[in-house]
Amino acid sequence: MYTSETTIRIHYALTDQMGVVYHGHYAQLYEIGRNEAVRELGFTYKEIEAMGILLVVTDIHIRFLRPAKYDDVITVKTTLREIPLHHKMTFHGEIYDEKNELLNTSDITLYFLDAKTMKRSEMPEVLKEKLFKYFN
Amino acid sequence: MYTSETTIRIHYALTDQMGVVYHGHYAQLYEIGRNEAVRELGFTYKEIEAMGILLVVTDIHIRFLRPAKYDDVITVKTTLREIPLHHKMTFHGEIYDEKNELLNTSDITLYFLDAKTMKRSEMPEVLKEKLFKYFN
Amino acid sequence: MYTSETTIRIHYALTDQMGVVYHGHYAQLYEIGRNEAVRELGFTYKEIEAMGILLVVTDIHIRFLRPAKYDDVITVKTTLREIPLHHKMTFHGEIYDEKNELLNTSDITLYFLDAKTMKRSEMPEVLKEKLFKYFN
Amino acid sequence: MYTSETTIRIHYALTDQMGVVYHGHYAQLYEIGRNEAVRELGFTYKEIEAMGILLVVTDIHIRFLRPAKYDDVITVKTTLREIPLHHKMTFHGEIYDEKNELLNTSDITLYFLDAKTMKRSEMPEVLKEKLFKYFN
Repeated sequence: MYTSETTIRIHYALTDQMGVVYHGHYAQLYEIGRNEAVRELGFTYKEIEAMGILLVVTDIHIRFLRPAKYDDVITVKTTLREIPLHHKMTFHGEIYDEKNELLNTSDITLYFLDAKTMKRSEMPEVLKEKLFKYFN
Repeated sequence: MYTSETTIRIHYALTDQMGVVYHGHYAQLYEIGRNEAVRELGFTYKEIEAMGILLVVTDIHIRFLRPAKYDDVITVKTTLREIPLHHKMTFHGEIYDEKNELLNTSDITLYFLDAKTMKRSEMPEVLKEKLFKYFN
Repeated sequence: MYTSETTIRIHYALTDQMGVVYHGHYAQLYEIGRNEAVRELGFTYKEIEAMGILLVVTDIHIRFLRPAKYDDVITVKTTLREIPLHHKMTFHGEIYDEKNELLNTSDITLYFLDAKTMKRSEMPEVLKEKLFKYFN
Repeated sequence: MYTSETTIRIHYALTDQMGVVYHGHYAQLYEIGRNEAVRELGFTYKEIEAMGILLVVTDIHIRFLRPAKYDDVITVKTTLREIPLHHKMTFHGEIYDEKNELLNTSDITLYFLDAKTMKRSEMPEVLKEKLFKYFN
């Protein structure tokens, strides 16, 4: 299992007139979590793109338990529960507030695509190496 | 079954550097579809809020088949497949491009909340009346 | 002078917890206005990009008179007051509500860039031809 | 003069298909800068709202010198150059990249509004006290 945590402060733009974070903006919060999870492995998603590999979201499932609010500092916990095989990865996400209450959960699946052919690609070897040591 | 269709032209703000609509923005496209689906029933979501009822998203599941792109005119098809009971509604959504190819599907569940108590509420009677005639 | 009008319905994602459209989202409303203004000339911004020319925003000035609100149908009026010379264009924008009250004004300047060299470029000839007949 | 600096990492959602941060999203970056500038004074914008005072943006002027890009860590520098009088404040903003190159500048004016009457209000006394010591 590989887990990473990052904190984000909610700014005004993320709220809607219900006085809470707009439901459609949680995908952005989880994106930030994934970015940081990859960075903590020792390289960046930007470097993966520079290698000609795109990571394309193919499935999002988000469950809303309690709303995040303006100026809250939330913690996004990003977890790879299983070793990703072949061309896809599923990240499990959890968002907690400052009292450590669970606000939101997600399962987001991404495919590796070859940027030239736009066809499915294997996970880059460097990413495999970094990642596999967490699953033994 | 109740179905409604609306068209949206994709503007630049919805794209990301992959050259397609950012995955996190599809929730907005489906929101526009739901708004118009309710409006075609003969009243508006704004009126529901004015009655002291909030419709809060509790679950989003989005599947990405093909990307929508800048300047595409997409059709959002919003369907209530089953008669909503009690305090929640699940909308099935589909997004098609101009060639009628399916790009994206979703299932989005909302709860009726009483704006004062923030507790679950029944569907307003006026909405029930408008809606139930589509399910006989 | 060249003027174009387009209407937009405000969806929930554009609001913030003040109960009005978030100030940072007006640039998107004006972008939609510019897109449609170019389209009415007989071609599209997408075609300009396909010619290897980027239109890059270099200056935004927006004045907020009255707020736009959820579910409002606003009219974005986009005007080229002067014939654009060389490498830049300034669009004047106005947003009106359904009672024709002025809500917002803007002046937004864009530069033509060559997508390969990323240096300033002249306005494409086809755009000049379409546009110049409005300024005699 | 009162100045505050905060850093932000650019996530994918902020980019557009030109491969840079979408022009309309800079207002959000400056909003985050203002939030942190107020927080460093020793209280929060959230507390101002809780006092029944809204800070409403009335004028935005943004100049784009160089684009910010995905995964860049930018520094937003927020400055009050003059002591704010009566009902409005103008924040000068500057955005720098990691090499300390200036990417973007802004002048953003906000009015204090009474949340009940929605009429102009004076700056709250607590904010005046915190702020005025920087202008002697």
